[in-house]
Amino acid sequence: MSSKKKIGILGASGYTGADAVRLLARHPNAEITALTANTHAGKAMDEVFPHFFMLDLPKLVEWEKVDWSKLDAVFCGLPHGATQEIIAAVLAANPKIKILDMSADFRLRDMNTYAQWYGHEHRAPKLQGEAVYGLTEFYREKIAAARLVACPGCYPTAALLALVPLAKAKLIDVDDIVIDAKSGVTGAGRGLKQNTLFSEAGEGLSPYSVGTHRHSPEIEQEIGVAAGSNVTVNFTPHLIPMSRGELCTSYVKLNGVSPDDLRAALAAAYKDEPFVHVAKKGVMPQTQNVRGSNYVQVGVFADRIKNRAIVISVLDNLVKGSAGQAIQNMNLMFGLPETAGLEQIALFP
Amino acid sequence: MSSKKKIGILGASGYTGADAVRLLARHPNAEITALTANTHAGKAMDEVFPHFFMLDLPKLVEWEKVDWSKLDAVFCGLPHGATQEIIAAVLAANPKIKILDMSADFRLRDMNTYAQWYGHEHRAPKLQGEAVYGLTEFYREKIAAARLVACPGCYPTAALLALVPLAKAKLIDVDDIVIDAKSGVTGAGRGLKQNTLFSEAGEGLSPYSVGTHRHSPEIEQEIGVAAGSNVTVNFTPHLIPMSRGELCTSYVKLNGVSPDDLRAALAAAYKDEPFVHVAKKGVMPQTQNVRGSNYVQVGVFADRIKNRAIVISVLDNLVKGSAGQAIQNMNLMFGLPETAGLEQIALFP
Amino acid sequence: MSSKKKIGILGASGYTGADAVRLLARHPNAEITALTANTHAGKAMDEVFPHFFMLDLPKLVEWEKVDWSKLDAVFCGLPHGATQEIIAAVLAANPKIKILDMSADFRLRDMNTYAQWYGHEHRAPKLQGEAVYGLTEFYREKIAAARLVACPGCYPTAALLALVPLAKAKLIDVDDIVIDAKSGVTGAGRGLKQNTLFSEAGEGLSPYSVGTHRHSPEIEQEIGVAAGSNVTVNFTPHLIPMSRGELCTSYVKLNGVSPDDLRAALAAAYKDEPFVHVAKKGVMPQTQNVRGSNYVQVGVFADRIKNRAIVISVLDNLVKGSAGQAIQNMNLMFGLPETAGLEQIALFP
Amino acid sequence: MSSKKKIGILGASGYTGADAVRLLARHPNAEITALTANTHAGKAMDEVFPHFFMLDLPKLVEWEKVDWSKLDAVFCGLPHGATQEIIAAVLAANPKIKILDMSADFRLRDMNTYAQWYGHEHRAPKLQGEAVYGLTEFYREKIAAARLVACPGCYPTAALLALVPLAKAKLIDVDDIVIDAKSGVTGAGRGLKQNTLFSEAGEGLSPYSVGTHRHSPEIEQEIGVAAGSNVTVNFTPHLIPMSRGELCTSYVKLNGVSPDDLRAALAAAYKDEPFVHVAKKGVMPQTQNVRGSNYVQVGVFADRIKNRAIVISVLDNLVKGSAGQAIQNMNLMFGLPETAGLEQIALFP
Repeated sequence: MSSKKKIGILGASGYTGADAVRLLARHPNAEITALTANTHAGKAMDEVFPHFFMLDLPKLVEWEKVDWSKLDAVFCGLPHGATQEIIAAVLAANPKIKILDMSADFRLRDMNTYAQWYGHEHRAPKLQGEAVYGLTEFYREKIAAARLVACPGCYPTAALLALVPLAKAKLIDVDDIVIDAKSGVTGAGRGLKQNTLFSEAGEGLSPYSVGTHRHSPEIEQEIGVAAGSNVTVNFTPHLIPMSRGELCTSYVKLNGVSPDDLRAALAAAYKDEPFVHVAKKGVMPQTQNVRGSNYVQVGVFADRIKNRAIVISVLDNLVKGSAGQAIQNMNLMFGLPETAGLEQIALFP
Repeated sequence: MSSKKKIGILGASGYTGADAVRLLARHPNAEITALTANTHAGKAMDEVFPHFFMLDLPKLVEWEKVDWSKLDAVFCGLPHGATQEIIAAVLAANPKIKILDMSADFRLRDMNTYAQWYGHEHRAPKLQGEAVYGLTEFYREKIAAARLVACPGCYPTAALLALVPLAKAKLIDVDDIVIDAKSGVTGAGRGLKQNTLFSEAGEGLSPYSVGTHRHSPEIEQEIGVAAGSNVTVNFTPHLIPMSRGELCTSYVKLNGVSPDDLRAALAAAYKDEPFVHVAKKGVMPQTQNVRGSNYVQVGVFADRIKNRAIVISVLDNLVKGSAGQAIQNMNLMFGLPETAGLEQIALFP
Repeated sequence: MSSKKKIGILGASGYTGADAVRLLARHPNAEITALTANTHAGKAMDEVFPHFFMLDLPKLVEWEKVDWSKLDAVFCGLPHGATQEIIAAVLAANPKIKILDMSADFRLRDMNTYAQWYGHEHRAPKLQGEAVYGLTEFYREKIAAARLVACPGCYPTAALLALVPLAKAKLIDVDDIVIDAKSGVTGAGRGLKQNTLFSEAGEGLSPYSVGTHRHSPEIEQEIGVAAGSNVTVNFTPHLIPMSRGELCTSYVKLNGVSPDDLRAALAAAYKDEPFVHVAKKGVMPQTQNVRGSNYVQVGVFADRIKNRAIVISVLDNLVKGSAGQAIQNMNLMFGLPETAGLEQIALFP
Repeated sequence: MSSKKKIGILGASGYTGADAVRLLARHPNAEITALTANTHAGKAMDEVFPHFFMLDLPKLVEWEKVDWSKLDAVFCGLPHGATQEIIAAVLAANPKIKILDMSADFRLRDMNTYAQWYGHEHRAPKLQGEAVYGLTEFYREKIAAARLVACPGCYPTAALLALVPLAKAKLIDVDDIVIDAKSGVTGAGRGLKQNTLFSEAGEGLSPYSVGTHRHSPEIEQEIGVAAGSNVTVNFTPHLIPMSRGELCTSYVKLNGVSPDDLRAALAAAYKDEPFVHVAKKGVMPQTQNVRGSNYVQVGVFADRIKNRAIVISVLDNLVKGSAGQAIQNMNLMFGLPETAGLEQIALFP
């Protein structure tokens, strides 16, 4: 027991925090020793999330009350904006602690882009310089050596796993990418909003943030890195009446190659990856296949329009799209097997 | 009562047939006098659809048993293929009867295209020549004068209402259209299929028929007519965990105009239409707004990529996408008010 | 047009208010001329409920701004407690106006019971004395003559339509009634609550207010009236992952009669009722059969335990359970056909 | 690896078979070495259940093709009736193999009761005599020593965990028990039925098999054992629009004790149980808390009717209600830790 890493979770009353608890509570090398939540401080965790009734978890406390020097790692599931200063304070209290940030605060490398999309100057630009973008499959070595990992958004993880290897290999025209994205309702968080009530979101389908979603610059940043140029993409999210799951249908123009070439390139890129699977020709990725799991499924399909193809990728927004990927990164940072605590198979049906 | 039109419904045990019954049973000028169903012949309609317990409907019979000479109109909700010969027989029995075909059998004008997509030669090519494509808003006069109306598919109705006025006015590049389509599960019909079981389709999201859906040639036919050229489009459908509703997100390249110009063009095209509404700038169409109704909502949004725009259209696949549009056409054919029996507002929540 | 009744709706931004609008907007004898909402005053109705985009409705205003003297009837969809004083003020402004109260404020005849369950003394006891309990099938004559009708709760409507004729005829032991009730999520209203978020209520099932639900005394009051004695019932509600619909499974002990006798008694009681249908032996009531409609379906089944039976009743909580029944009552109060504006068939699927 | 138990699954193409695969594939002491399915023989498992794309599983074969002598245990997820003879054949081929039967074939001890409810004489009465009823918490020692375990149905598990300790301690009147049960749609299996289509079961609620469900005699058998008398119960199941989860609301008459006494008795009965948790007073069991997990939550509530109480129990019908409990039993039979492979926490949201 003493060899287990001591873990704290900032923002444990949200869905990403809760999914980190779900997975870490059964992780062979982790021990949850601190849980924080602003408005729920003082409560037992199973008052806030009753599905933890079988666990013996620490009480929720205010983040200022945690003795950070006793922890090995902290997962941060706070809303963006709040995160920067709290993480700075945590690191000041314990400079060796590993930070897995699941918020958006350290994902954008360019401070102007950050300010433009989030409406204020970044409050911890030096830490931003240190932060590593936590898309495990593309930044594995840097993550293993990092102190602060900015875990990607759920949509960027789904879109980038589909597109980055293709952009890097110049197989597609990066100036003509349309990403039609669909997400379950947990993507909107546990905050009370009218549009995420059961009676509003159920039996219906709504596009949202068309042309203005904050995951766009993150996707553009990383496709830009892969392509070696500035990139603008279309990214159009839709709210789907399901709790978990995310699917990106990416429409791409081919640089003189075939859809089969795209599939082969993706298969080569991910052949040793434990969590990213490229579907065989004709097999359709669907969110049901990854629900509750850290797995990703990517497929490639021919378009009726010549020289175009369709790349489809699915993941669970709270797992590979958030808490699961954060744990995958933690495993790397502690030299643990990358798949530790993450091998649950999708819950289907 | 004697002035009511006598209506028969072929294929009353399917969802489109049932929605025709739902609406016609309360239509002020219609009287349902015959219901046919192959496998359920002999049953009462409320054994097959228990939600009709309050109606006094004719029993289901085999189609050969109906005296077609006594009917004024027939709605046909049979599977494609079967329809051609049965409609020919019905018209032989009563050449004056009005036919509202909700199947795919008479929608494609080109017999080669039909054969290519449906796998057999058309069995009633002469009737095909007579059939009018029943997208009310674009073929109103021809429909009013027709005997046989081929009501469009649900997806084509949603896509074409969004795109035809734009193609006709040359505002968009018709060679670069991506239609990402999403449909509720009723679109797959009442037949028993594993992928439409609750436990399979619920809490999940699946693309299907990518690049191969039979509604593609129908969309291409009508955009082609509008543009005056042959057109190939990308059309990619997705199965959504809801019963009713369809949404098309159409990604278009602009011919030197702005998204606001597109919206203005659509608003002008539909300004006198009772059922097609163009959303004000910033208002998001969503399927919840049209569930159970014959209304359509179309919206236009700017893309982050220059010279591109996004057109979003929603409808209820069983109403404006099928039975409702058929009734709208029937109203025209009988000189009734076009909205008769169709003014139900969406059932929300 | 001038002969239409002028209607106001208090609390038009809630679900019951919205369903009253949905139905009244297509009612042949009604014209909506005032809509009030506290927090949304100044907005267009389709900003608050976008599915009304096709209607030309009055703007939402504060209730104090309405000229009540110009109205013929008002529907009240306000939260309980608030209603009493506002209705008193409306009646002061126009003593001839007809009030259809869909709140709980005037349903309990006994002021002590009211105070005990709602936590404060009734604020308009004189009006309470005047109010008629609006379960149409049992109080038709009184409703027709009333000025103020207290429309029953959704659960009481479902339970009482199943049980009152049986209690009245002494066919069941009224001291041994268990009502296991199940409701869709709209029953909880449009207010923002964590437990009605899609991600919380979806794919799950929760009992709530076990032994403490405020619809209990209302059910007991009316069964007591029918039985001529004080009655205590078990009433246990459950939240079901669907938007609309309510089902009561009532477990009863038989007074020496058979389940078939119960069914016959119910069939006799409702034989002339336009909206209440008793299912034939073996036919199972289900909420799908009444979704969006004013119809009720009741069925009786034998229990494995001797001398017991099971009575199952279903309705749409927002229609016969609220706005629809209110309109049914309004029709009576104005001498209109009782079914006017209410003949929509269930939206299935 | 060599120390892992070799496991076969009969009927791997059904939901219970698939959930056994999901759990056993990650069980530290198990290795899946044979999968059988009649109609799908020859296919890869991920063609039948695509969510297993990340596993390296044996192909599906006909059961006659398996070399049973090489296996340590077999899980049987076949339909009832078929099971008896196949299990007899498997045991003939390997008399030492451990059988975890998840069908209904060996649950009823009385052969007449079996014949009455299943419509034919039992085909392996001798094996029936040997079979141990696999409700782990009540038959732990016998299970550990058994060769053939008849795992209980999902409903009986939920109902009996709530009621058996109370019946045994004579705290309730066993002749007056009403069990109102609610189940997700997976309870109906993967077979193609109209009533389990998404468009039929979604947004709705249906009672079924009222008074005639085959789980009734199983519940009565075990409550009878606990009470030491013959028992008849009311058991009324309802189909809920969710995939997984089961909830029993049991209405009981108290033998001079209080609801708190019931709760205390249950807490005492389960105080050392790893999977059965008694909710603290006021905490509401809900299926969301156990989705995908082997845990059970039981709560007790006061009734408004004197001397009555309400006991609420929840579980996941495919886990503790089927495959999970079977694995729990297998662990016992092999002397493994009882919780091995079963500690997954509920997937919420």
